[in-house]
Amino acid sequence: MRSDGRVNNELRPIKITPHYIKHAEGSVLIEVGDTKVICTATIEERVPPFMKGQGKGWVTAEYSMLPRSTQVRNQRESAKGKLGGRTMEIQRLIGRALRAVVDLEALGERSVTLDCDVIQADGGTRTSAITGAFVAMVFALNKLANDKHMAKFPVTDFLASVSVGVIADTARLDLHYHEDSQAKVDMNVVMTGEGQFVEVQGTGEEAPFSRKELDELLALAETGIQQMIEEQRKVLGPISERIRGAHHAVKG
Amino acid sequence: MRSDGRVNNELRPIKITPHYIKHAEGSVLIEVGDTKVICTATIEERVPPFMKGQGKGWVTAEYSMLPRSTQVRNQRESAKGKLGGRTMEIQRLIGRALRAVVDLEALGERSVTLDCDVIQADGGTRTSAITGAFVAMVFALNKLANDKHMAKFPVTDFLASVSVGVIADTARLDLHYHEDSQAKVDMNVVMTGEGQFVEVQGTGEEAPFSRKELDELLALAETGIQQMIEEQRKVLGPISERIRGAHHAVKG
Amino acid sequence: MRSDGRVNNELRPIKITPHYIKHAEGSVLIEVGDTKVICTATIEERVPPFMKGQGKGWVTAEYSMLPRSTQVRNQRESAKGKLGGRTMEIQRLIGRALRAVVDLEALGERSVTLDCDVIQADGGTRTSAITGAFVAMVFALNKLANDKHMAKFPVTDFLASVSVGVIADTARLDLHYHEDSQAKVDMNVVMTGEGQFVEVQGTGEEAPFSRKELDELLALAETGIQQMIEEQRKVLGPISERIRGAHHAVKG
Amino acid sequence: MRSDGRVNNELRPIKITPHYIKHAEGSVLIEVGDTKVICTATIEERVPPFMKGQGKGWVTAEYSMLPRSTQVRNQRESAKGKLGGRTMEIQRLIGRALRAVVDLEALGERSVTLDCDVIQADGGTRTSAITGAFVAMVFALNKLANDKHMAKFPVTDFLASVSVGVIADTARLDLHYHEDSQAKVDMNVVMTGEGQFVEVQGTGEEAPFSRKELDELLALAETGIQQMIEEQRKVLGPISERIRGAHHAVKG
Amino acid sequence: MRSDGRVNNELRPIKITPHYIKHAEGSVLIEVGDTKVICTATIEERVPPFMKGQGKGWVTAEYSMLPRSTQVRNQRESAKGKLGGRTMEIQRLIGRALRAVVDLEALGERSVTLDCDVIQADGGTRTSAITGAFVAMVFALNKLANDKHMAKFPVTDFLASVSVGVIADTARLDLHYHEDSQAKVDMNVVMTGEGQFVEVQGTGEEAPFSRKELDELLALAETGIQQMIEEQRKVLGPISERIRGAHHAVKG
Amino acid sequence: MRSDGRVNNELRPIKITPHYIKHAEGSVLIEVGDTKVICTATIEERVPPFMKGQGKGWVTAEYSMLPRSTQVRNQRESAKGKLGGRTMEIQRLIGRALRAVVDLEALGERSVTLDCDVIQADGGTRTSAITGAFVAMVFALNKLANDKHMAKFPVTDFLASVSVGVIADTARLDLHYHEDSQAKVDMNVVMTGEGQFVEVQGTGEEAPFSRKELDELLALAETGIQQMIEEQRKVLGPISERIRGAHHAVKG
Repeated sequence: MRSDGRVNNELRPIKITPHYIKHAEGSVLIEVGDTKVICTATIEERVPPFMKGQGKGWVTAEYSMLPRSTQVRNQRESAKGKLGGRTMEIQRLIGRALRAVVDLEALGERSVTLDCDVIQADGGTRTSAITGAFVAMVFALNKLANDKHMAKFPVTDFLASVSVGVIADTARLDLHYHEDSQAKVDMNVVMTGEGQFVEVQGTGEEAPFSRKELDELLALAETGIQQMIEEQRKVLGPISERIRGAHHAVKG
Repeated sequence: MRSDGRVNNELRPIKITPHYIKHAEGSVLIEVGDTKVICTATIEERVPPFMKGQGKGWVTAEYSMLPRSTQVRNQRESAKGKLGGRTMEIQRLIGRALRAVVDLEALGERSVTLDCDVIQADGGTRTSAITGAFVAMVFALNKLANDKHMAKFPVTDFLASVSVGVIADTARLDLHYHEDSQAKVDMNVVMTGEGQFVEVQGTGEEAPFSRKELDELLALAETGIQQMIEEQRKVLGPISERIRGAHHAVKG
Repeated sequence: MRSDGRVNNELRPIKITPHYIKHAEGSVLIEVGDTKVICTATIEERVPPFMKGQGKGWVTAEYSMLPRSTQVRNQRESAKGKLGGRTMEIQRLIGRALRAVVDLEALGERSVTLDCDVIQADGGTRTSAITGAFVAMVFALNKLANDKHMAKFPVTDFLASVSVGVIADTARLDLHYHEDSQAKVDMNVVMTGEGQFVEVQGTGEEAPFSRKELDELLALAETGIQQMIEEQRKVLGPISERIRGAHHAVKG
Repeated sequence: MRSDGRVNNELRPIKITPHYIKHAEGSVLIEVGDTKVICTATIEERVPPFMKGQGKGWVTAEYSMLPRSTQVRNQRESAKGKLGGRTMEIQRLIGRALRAVVDLEALGERSVTLDCDVIQADGGTRTSAITGAFVAMVFALNKLANDKHMAKFPVTDFLASVSVGVIADTARLDLHYHEDSQAKVDMNVVMTGEGQFVEVQGTGEEAPFSRKELDELLALAETGIQQMIEEQRKVLGPISERIRGAHHAVKG
Repeated sequence: MRSDGRVNNELRPIKITPHYIKHAEGSVLIEVGDTKVICTATIEERVPPFMKGQGKGWVTAEYSMLPRSTQVRNQRESAKGKLGGRTMEIQRLIGRALRAVVDLEALGERSVTLDCDVIQADGGTRTSAITGAFVAMVFALNKLANDKHMAKFPVTDFLASVSVGVIADTARLDLHYHEDSQAKVDMNVVMTGEGQFVEVQGTGEEAPFSRKELDELLALAETGIQQMIEEQRKVLGPISERIRGAHHAVKG
Repeated sequence: MRSDGRVNNELRPIKITPHYIKHAEGSVLIEVGDTKVICTATIEERVPPFMKGQGKGWVTAEYSMLPRSTQVRNQRESAKGKLGGRTMEIQRLIGRALRAVVDLEALGERSVTLDCDVIQADGGTRTSAITGAFVAMVFALNKLANDKHMAKFPVTDFLASVSVGVIADTARLDLHYHEDSQAKVDMNVVMTGEGQFVEVQGTGEEAPFSRKELDELLALAETGIQQMIEEQRKVLGPISERIRGAHHAVKG
């Protein structure tokens, strides 16, 4: 049994509080166990220079941890004067993952910026950020679609993410911080509502891993992600239908 | 009457949620109307280089706004690679204000870092940060005093802050964002529980101001700050007695 | 008696050398005791991006200290690669203060940049910079008004600044460096020729201060600032009349 | 058939020139098709601060592209003043991958820095860098083991890397630049001589991918990596025996 | 006799490999003894802002050393976040030197960027970079002249560079690293095919030098540079005629 | 005749005001025509890391221009966040030049920092900075030698610098800004009191130059530098004898 009493294929409790920040076009506070992330979605009527004039939109993300979201205070990157490698890696991952379920042509020449700010960290901050940012983005695009009478809803499928890992030769779902620091293998998986992979990132931190271990981890991840998508559906309520509609339009 | 229904000498509703972030030695979420700031206090057993070997401690602060705490998204200072002038000015103010009620010798060679992160902004973020950071700091120092059996409690008085301003020739207490942007004169005041001034910063944004206006603003600020200190006392409960004790030891 | 023989309400000797730098549209060397600041005013036929298209001008300031203006050599901010918090705070103050007496509409879409470079520091560098920058700005705008046949002179009042403080329970005017480092309370005040406040910045460095101390300091500051404005009038000579005219046009 | 005439499971020609840079403790020029990377290994008798006093060593990597290694000139990161996210992601990957086959205790308190400089880019620069850096590192550690009479050789297995991807519904091995820019799915795999995974990074750039596609890609990668390891063995010659010895000592 | 067996007025062996990098418009690998520099020339159809609208082109250079081009690893300037003074000085020198033989009007509103990357350093890296960059630039401009049917070839003369120095009271040509570090006087000279000076930079590193020493060094440099230009002619082959033609058109 | 009425081998008027800044160990204001530079010398009882433990001292320089020292305002390097190439080149030159006449062993493990701040620029700022910094340094070292009862005076010769150039086929001494911008060839020369060269930096800005032109320029420079050294002697008065003594001790 795990230190917090869960069995190996069990997620931590998830809570998604919608409309958490009043100024943002879409926002949530996502809590996965003791990990808490504020996700906001900002829509702007412009795209980055490299996308101009293509009639398509762009989705990008930024990620940060408050200094005292962690057990030991971490120095602000604004004070250091630059972003660390871990931050860059994570915000590139979040943006890339979300773009996989956005129809950039349907979005038009607009950008969606997802700000994921970890206010309390206990493992799985990047996967929680993806799961939460998806909901914030859908709220914002739903509002946009209403305001602009968009013909096609630009989100084509659900998307969520979870971490899995091997601790003491056992594959486990949704590692908390203490487990994460002991894991021999650590994997982050992003999947769609339809059960396809968007990202698979597995690392043998301590030792290489076998094909058999890889297969076990992927199966666990799939289970966890589908439960997370259920939570997203509940929070989104009737807006979920718009995603289903867009999905059918694309996939037939 | 004001746009949110308040009279001129009325504060917005204040809510201070204690122990908001589990990892920090002390923390609160302070809400003043729609302005929300997470304040955490971190105690470290070292002081900055310029304070070494003096047997005294140090108190410092950092301040930041989440990108979407504001109506229009503001770019992260970590992405810009440097802190802006406004941020530096505010964090210097918060640190300086709090040091005024800390007995640095009683603290010993330790540092307290106050992180004030605005998650939603609607005017008065710096004054709310000071009021909230004071409570987070007292929680952290109370824990330290218990753990280390400190002889003297290092906080010698209460401390809170409020903004006041002149809008359309009328002095008003605790400006929200819309009022702040219209104010002819804008003043931030920090005071102690005993009613002494720690900081007075008044600016004629649009036009110079008279001595009479200055006097009205100072009187309003005093009223508001004493109400804020009442809220701090409620949240701190019996720990308030330690401050009273330290105050008497110093002031006799 | 004070260490330099002055009484409490006495300014240090002031000397303002006009046209000190030949390339600038306006310039002075201001000496207040041993504090020496070169102030230049540059007029440019453009405004910062956030002011474009409003038909209004802008006034901004930069402040720096030569490395050996101080007793111990201070490292250049250009070598550090960033501006410190103190520098940012001071240059924001100088710009804000001067804008209070400039009619930005009369100025038109132009910017005035005031460069204040401390070549020797002995306390009161920011207040001396404001007092000197005002004169440099008026010289530059007088030249502009002549060259462009401007209908309205854009400077609506005189403006000067002084520091005051409490040392050993006594309020003193115009602190030199040694006094400044001992002051319990430190206040910088900016006022107009008409005797209105533009900035009041008081800080209880060592201890909080009472309303009575605040009142004494404000009275001392007013005395000192009016003497400084007399010096400005002498240096500006007949150009002073243009300010008087603009003042009457605005205030009636 | 592919644009360069290869079949789907065929690698590009590989050439590893040993001892390419005379000053480095170990170095190679690796050419994989038209991709050319200079890899040097530097041994230093010190470890980064976070590793001090643990009796263990560290392996780290840096990656850069010459401005004209690419079709369109890319600006130097030294001129931009900061490392981009892609660079950080890649150099973290290279370091992490190589550490998986180094016995940090056997290395002792020393660091190995692998500099991977792409002089010509045609797809697969990060995977070629890993494959080349492994050889440079083994040369350097072989020299170190000889000079210091180390009891245990610190490299416990071979390590190489290759990219695979799905282009037009077909899985292909070792993408060149043109294929890479068309790939619907892109995956980088790092494996050991024993056939275990060290890193699996798969991304659905254009669209999500199925479990079946993932399985095909992993199988292709395994084939390619074992061929690359054959090339490494040839270049290392008798030094290969030392790795085999260390492997048996660890795995039994 | 010198440590590598050369006599005082003898160059090290020179080898210029043309078309070393496939993507660049012009490129060489230049080897002068053990010093190896990759030089690429990039042509872009735009000029820097300060040159816009003048109907003229621009030539600029960047210089860098790979971390392990030197005996002891040197930290990357991209990791430091800024270019060092030596790098800036060298890249300014290379650009300035090459502009002296380019007819910027004949070039038209285009820019040539010369990237000089030292992959192995053994003294004379800046002079080798100039000699190599000249050849890369001529290749690129020859291609441009062909593609655009330019009326005038924009390179008006050959250009090469060498270092000379005084070691133990003897003037020597083309110092290698060990000699360079012992030199009392160090001089870099850039000359044209016609034998005119473009740059003379002499420094008394250890002690001042006399007019007689200066004269000896200039004579040695001239000898060396004319030999280097012979090598350039061989590599450029028939393109050399275009330079001769342009030279006659300018000089008559 | 030249635009300011001088003949070709005539210097502009020179004025060196000693002890210009009260806090520095040595300081001057040097005026060469309309070029004005404040030079201060700071002595510190420590050396840079690369010099530690060698029993020798170090001399270094920093150079900056006030924003409005020039005809058009130049942006501060502190605001840009980095030093430009020209600044780095100049401050490296000043430091190197001055070290040529300092006996670093006699100086002991101390550093001299020369800050050269151009307050008004009209050509020749770097050469004026060298000439002025020499005097500031001698004042500071004279004070040090007195305070510490140093056995040997560490300055072994006089040192000054001047610019020369070719304008319209005529060699001219000490170019002012307008001449400098027209010069076909521009050369900065640094020489000792004994008439030896320390630096010769000649650049064919517009066109290459001949040996004959080089010889004429060097002769002009020598004339000018010896006159500058005469001015230095007058300002230094009896301290000049200490330099003569140190010179004889070294040169015999």
